[in-house]
Amino acid sequence: MKEDDITGWFRQQRQLSPAEIPIGIGDDMAQIALERSASVLITTDMLLDGTHFDLRTATLEQVGYKSMAASLSDCAAMATIPLAAVVAVALPRGWSGRQLQQLHAGVVFAADKYHCPLVGGDITSWTGDGRFAVCVSMLSKPGDKPPVRRNGAKVGDVICVTGSLGGSGRRKHLEFEPRVQEALQIVQSADLHAMMDISDGLSTDLNRICRQSGVGALVEAAAVPVSEDARAQADPLSAALNEGEDFELLFTLSPDQWDQLCRLWDELVPITRIGRITDTGRMEIRMPDGRAVELRPGGYDHLAD
Amino acid sequence: MKEDDITGWFRQQRQLSPAEIPIGIGDDMAQIALERSASVLITTDMLLDGTHFDLRTATLEQVGYKSMAASLSDCAAMATIPLAAVVAVALPRGWSGRQLQQLHAGVVFAADKYHCPLVGGDITSWTGDGRFAVCVSMLSKPGDKPPVRRNGAKVGDVICVTGSLGGSGRRKHLEFEPRVQEALQIVQSADLHAMMDISDGLSTDLNRICRQSGVGALVEAAAVPVSEDARAQADPLSAALNEGEDFELLFTLSPDQWDQLCRLWDELVPITRIGRITDTGRMEIRMPDGRAVELRPGGYDHLAD
Repeated sequence: MKEDDITGWFRQQRQLSPAEIPIGIGDDMAQIALERSASVLITTDMLLDGTHFDLRTATLEQVGYKSMAASLSDCAAMATIPLAAVVAVALPRGWSGRQLQQLHAGVVFAADKYHCPLVGGDITSWTGDGRFAVCVSMLSKPGDKPPVRRNGAKVGDVICVTGSLGGSGRRKHLEFEPRVQEALQIVQSADLHAMMDISDGLSTDLNRICRQSGVGALVEAAAVPVSEDARAQADPLSAALNEGEDFELLFTLSPDQWDQLCRLWDELVPITRIGRITDTGRMEIRMPDGRAVELRPGGYDHLAD
Repeated sequence: MKEDDITGWFRQQRQLSPAEIPIGIGDDMAQIALERSASVLITTDMLLDGTHFDLRTATLEQVGYKSMAASLSDCAAMATIPLAAVVAVALPRGWSGRQLQQLHAGVVFAADKYHCPLVGGDITSWTGDGRFAVCVSMLSKPGDKPPVRRNGAKVGDVICVTGSLGGSGRRKHLEFEPRVQEALQIVQSADLHAMMDISDGLSTDLNRICRQSGVGALVEAAAVPVSEDARAQADPLSAALNEGEDFELLFTLSPDQWDQLCRLWDELVPITRIGRITDTGRMEIRMPDGRAVELRPGGYDHLAD
C-alpha cells in the first residue's frame, strides 16, 4: 500500500464537518474554524535520524533548523502566516541537556528568522536502543487571501515552480529557505488555483495536485530548472523530477494570472513555468527530442516496498 | 540535567510576547492569541515503543487510543475544549497499511468519543533499525473560563486529585479516560487556582505546581487515594505518589471554593482532598504516624541518570 493510498483511506473513514474543519486530511495543512470567522491551520512533520538526516554528518543545530524549516515550508505551501511551533523529541540513551541545547539553537534560529516562536514541546527517551526523532507541529493563520489548496488546478493552467530542483540531499536539505515570504507575495500578485511544496519530488507532488484536482499535466523537460547539485549527477533531469526535499513551491494559475505575476514579480526567487495542466487525466513529460512520454510519480514514498 | 531544568532553560532563552503567546513553555498547553480575542491552545506528546507502551503486549489499537488520550488529558489539565488532532508516526521497516489501520482504529475511537477529529498527520519510516514512535499534537480552545495554569496555587489552598493513583502501568495507562468533561465541570462549579494532569507521578507533578507558584505543600499520606492496582504492590503509598501515567487531575483552590465544589459536585469521578498549599517553599508529607517528612519528586524524569 502506498502512502497516498493510505492517506486517502484515512480521509474516507470520517466525514469532517466543513463548517468546523474547512480543510482536512490530504493537504499541506489542515484548517480548523474558530469563533467569529477566525481560523487556524496546523501541520506536523516527523524527522528521523537515518531517513531525513544523518547524525554522523549533520549537526544537531542543522537538524533543529531543518525540522522547523520543513513545517515552515508547509505554511508556505498554502500561503499562510506562521504563528507558533511545538517540538517533541525522542532521545537515544545517554543524551543530555547538551544535545538538547544544540538542537534548540537550530530550532530558535529558524523560529526567530521566520517569526514563529517555539511555545512548547515534549522530551522523551528511548528505553534500550532507539534513534533520534524530532516532530515539529506548527500553527499558521490565513493571510489576506484564503489558504491555497492542492485540489484547485484547472485545465489550461500554467504549472510553475520556484527555485531549482534536485540534488537537495547533498546540502540544501539541511539549509533550505522555506518560501514563506515568497508564497505570501505570489498570492498578492496573482490568483493561484493550486499550490503545495515539493517535499517528495516534483513528479510525486505534481501527481498529488493532478489526482486531487482531477486533471492531467504536461511538463516540458527542457523547462525544468535543474539545480547545480543535480547537474553533478549521472541523470540530472531524473534528479530534478524525482528526488525529494527540494522544499520549493509548485503551483498552478491561469495564463492571464501568469502574465500578471510575470509583470509584478520582483525576483525574491526565480519562478519558472514548467508546463501546463491538461484534460488527459495523466501526467506526461515532453522530452527534449519532442516525444511526450508518461511521467510516473518517482519521488519518495515512505510506504513503498 | 533534569527535564524540568532543561524546560526552564528553554523558557528563559526567548521572551515570548504575552499579547501573542499568553501561555508559553512550561504548562500543559501553550496558548496562542488570534484576531478578535479568539485564541487556541496546543500540546504535543511523543509516545515510544518500550517507554510508553510495549508492542509485545499492547495492541496498536490500544496505542492509538493512548496517544490521543494523553493529549486529551492535557486539554483537560487546563479545562479547555478539544478541537482537532494531527498524528505523526515513525514506522519500523516492513510495516504496511495494515498496522496503520489498526493504529487508526484506536485514534478515531478516542477522536469520536471526545469530539476531537483527526485532521492530518505524517507517515515516516525508519531506514535500518528503528522502533515505532507516534506523536500526537492537539488543539483546544478555552471554555467559558480562562485556561487553568500551573502557576496560580496560593498559600492555604486545598490540594485535590480526581480518581485514584498508582499502578497505572498494569492496565490503566492503556485504557484511561482523560478527564475532559470532568475538568470543564469542575471549573463550572468552583474557581481553581492551579491545575495539571498527573502524567509523571503525583510527587513530581505537585512539585511542578509548587515551583511554578512559589509555594510549598503538605500532603496527608492517609488521604491519598491509592488505586486497587497500587494496593497489590509492595509499597502502595509509594506507587500512588511516584508512579507515572495516572492521567488524573491535580488542582488547588481556596477552602471556600472547595466547600462549594463539594456541594455542587455530582460525582462524575471521585474528588479527594489530599493536603494543602503552604508557605514553607517545600513539599512535605504527613505519614500515618503523624510525622511530617520531606516529599521528594520521585516520579518519572526522561532526562534523569
